[in-house]
Amino acid sequence: MLSTTASLTVTSVAALALVIIFNTVHDPLLAALGFALLGCMITLRLIPALKDSFKKAGRQNELTYNQITITTNLMSRPESMGVVCATVYLVCLFLFIPFPFMEWLTGSGGILSRKEVFHIPTFPHDKLGEFLSAILSLQSMIFLGFADDVFDIRWRYKLLLPTIASIPLLMVYYVNFGVTYIVVPIPLRFLFGRIVDLGVFYYLYMSMMAVFCTNSINILAGINGVEAGQSLVIGISIAINDWLFLNGADPAVEAHLLSLFLILPFIGVTIGLLFYNWYPSKVFVGDTYCYFAGMTFAVVGILGHFSKTMLLFFIPQIFNFLYSAPQLFKLMDCPRHRMPKLNAKTRKLEYSRARIKSSSLLSLLILKIFSGLRLAKITKIKRKEKIQQQDSELTFTETEKFNNEDDDDTDSNMIEVNNFTLINLILLKFGPMHEHTLTITVMIIQILGSALAFFVRYRLVHFFYKEDGS
Amino acid sequence: MLSTTASLTVTSVAALALVIIFNTVHDPLLAALGFALLGCMITLRLIPALKDSFKKAGRQNELTYNQITITTNLMSRPESMGVVCATVYLVCLFLFIPFPFMEWLTGSGGILSRKEVFHIPTFPHDKLGEFLSAILSLQSMIFLGFADDVFDIRWRYKLLLPTIASIPLLMVYYVNFGVTYIVVPIPLRFLFGRIVDLGVFYYLYMSMMAVFCTNSINILAGINGVEAGQSLVIGISIAINDWLFLNGADPAVEAHLLSLFLILPFIGVTIGLLFYNWYPSKVFVGDTYCYFAGMTFAVVGILGHFSKTMLLFFIPQIFNFLYSAPQLFKLMDCPRHRMPKLNAKTRKLEYSRARIKSSSLLSLLILKIFSGLRLAKITKIKRKEKIQQQDSELTFTETEKFNNEDDDDTDSNMIEVNNFTLINLILLKFGPMHEHTLTITVMIIQILGSALAFFVRYRLVHFFYKEDGS
Repeated sequence: MLSTTASLTVTSVAALALVIIFNTVHDPLLAALGFALLGCMITLRLIPALKDSFKKAGRQNELTYNQITITTNLMSRPESMGVVCATVYLVCLFLFIPFPFMEWLTGSGGILSRKEVFHIPTFPHDKLGEFLSAILSLQSMIFLGFADDVFDIRWRYKLLLPTIASIPLLMVYYVNFGVTYIVVPIPLRFLFGRIVDLGVFYYLYMSMMAVFCTNSINILAGINGVEAGQSLVIGISIAINDWLFLNGADPAVEAHLLSLFLILPFIGVTIGLLFYNWYPSKVFVGDTYCYFAGMTFAVVGILGHFSKTMLLFFIPQIFNFLYSAPQLFKLMDCPRHRMPKLNAKTRKLEYSRARIKSSSLLSLLILKIFSGLRLAKITKIKRKEKIQQQDSELTFTETEKFNNEDDDDTDSNMIEVNNFTLINLILLKFGPMHEHTLTITVMIIQILGSALAFFVRYRLVHFFYKEDGS
Repeated sequence: MLSTTASLTVTSVAALALVIIFNTVHDPLLAALGFALLGCMITLRLIPALKDSFKKAGRQNELTYNQITITTNLMSRPESMGVVCATVYLVCLFLFIPFPFMEWLTGSGGILSRKEVFHIPTFPHDKLGEFLSAILSLQSMIFLGFADDVFDIRWRYKLLLPTIASIPLLMVYYVNFGVTYIVVPIPLRFLFGRIVDLGVFYYLYMSMMAVFCTNSINILAGINGVEAGQSLVIGISIAINDWLFLNGADPAVEAHLLSLFLILPFIGVTIGLLFYNWYPSKVFVGDTYCYFAGMTFAVVGILGHFSKTMLLFFIPQIFNFLYSAPQLFKLMDCPRHRMPKLNAKTRKLEYSRARIKSSSLLSLLILKIFSGLRLAKITKIKRKEKIQQQDSELTFTETEKFNNEDDDDTDSNMIEVNNFTLINLILLKFGPMHEHTLTITVMIIQILGSALAFFVRYRLVHFFYKEDGS
């Protein structure tokens, strides 16, 4: 539980948030900021309270149901507090629904002054539909993530269900905007012309984006605070980008306003979660949080019409995904866990390794490419040598030789390679690190990625598009 | 798993459903029927498949996470297959979203023929918003039910969260209809006038309805097939009521069409679930199903504008709720479980009893009222008598005497009373029953309730309202 001082602070800030919310009838952006604060405070308050309650629930379930016995290991930290954080976010959004529409709800059309049956013809039903579809798609993914935390969901469902979850979003995108063309960058116009209409493929692209965002955060995970940390950086980057649009005279102001309504409370609850998830973490975020964060970004990118800019904020995730792909898609040997391993003596994390058993042409090719790019470190395991050979970097030719040797003793021919994740790569390049430092390093990389994204989006863009964006 | 013949049948019917769906561009009602069939078949197929997978997932989780160990007892039946059924329903609804809007999506405004950027000004954004808000509120409750199955959620959240979950629904109701007045029945008009505007209280009433519907099915539960059975009867009653409106020339046709879109797939998945949940049940429905069913009814009643008729279909649930209230709200002693107990010899169910420890004035008053209404059977427990005294019906005066006797041996002064649930009352009135017969009895009562509802709605109504409904 929180200390008395902390508890008082949380309560005071929550009260402040309520004051802000109740005084923002005509400024939904301020209300969103209020809900961000409130969400953060509720998360800060609920996680320690529910942490014990989750455990207790585990015991209670054991008594109640004889069909499923859920036992929680009382000595360890509770998994899946992401579901608490995501639920607080949903509650904030539900309560926020009326705020962007306050001018239609108060005054002469207001609930209390209404005497006659009448229809509000000017009500922006399309905007309400947009907001509802955003919450619907988000909630679907949170539900899926939670189900994945409780039962392990199979991969095919993990790809199929986000596609279905994005239907409301795509439907609303279709009827509200229906823009499916892209403006071709100047250097490529001699090939495609100025505009290319992608038609249905544009919807396929948006739906794929939902699948990508949700899963890419899920695979850059595994150390304290890293999931919430990277999501916080991305979330703040989106908010800054939206802010830049609000101050300009762009026609896309409405879209970026919607984006802010969704991203501000997200930043709030993420800070609340990170407080407990930061090293040494008291709670884990679970798959729920990764799905929740990823889908928030996808929704905001689609409805805010900046899916390309959004992908720029995902540079570290895109790199991690491409780098992980050979192991994820089983083109190479992939161990059950690819997380870095703790060296008990130094108390630092070291990169983990995968043993290469198969010598298929494809996996050798991948090893060759990754070695060439200095992304793979190949280690030989000597016969009857118990302790793995330290840091003996081999060239690819040597490795190939090993694989061609006769196979009388499998162990003598084995090679190992670092697991292909960004986190292991950091440990490989910068040496063993404390978990705390490692998370900060990932966050710094994420911030550098966002800086690059802003540079590309606002500076380099002039080389590809004319001033007026055409 | 299903047998080969059953499996072939399921596949064929699913194929038929797909054919129906793909040929119903201009008849969304037929498409809804197709999705009902499809939902039923997918549920029939998924439950046996996931039953094993849930168990396997339990074991996998045990290996994967050392934070939460979920172990399923492999000898017993899997809990909470309601979540599978509800998820299939949601997937059906998501896929159904475009169907009511096909005329705007196909033809000249269609996705493939579209060349220019344009906005569809005639698109019924309000109808889409209605549908999205319905799914959103439903999904929130399913999520809550699932969370309740996994962790036991506290009562205060069980009441608070459905209220928040109904916000999108109320928001859409407000902007689309905003009707908050009720037409007063003729005999009462001398008091209130012809029309009473309830204002905000109307929204409170609708929100309370969501809370009531979800919880009232949850407390008429506990024997094989009873939750899905009663819900099936209510669902079919709603569909019949909608059907009666469609054939008439009522202006409410659109609202009842929406109701059918939502209720037909519900009937489909419920039949699929009931197939496995019927005595002797292979799976349990869990809280998820009860919440899911209850919220479906509340949503349909609110958006279809027949919340009063809906409550008429809930007569058995309302009776059960009022009857249970003294025990639920701890006005009387309430045991942990109030389910009927199995007599091992006869293999029949007998009503269960609660031991009355407190002799508060309130609980005595309730006992007196219920005894008077012949709803309570009070049994005395004799001193040192191991076997409970059989069927010794006592009048209340005798009971009171017991309570006034000196308290030297608590056991000698104890009385027991049947637990106040509809299921126990049936067993009390009709004698011990096989579980199978008991479920059928509850369903017959539900059908009689619906018959009464139709009689009140379509015959008795003339005593209260004029022909034109004014």
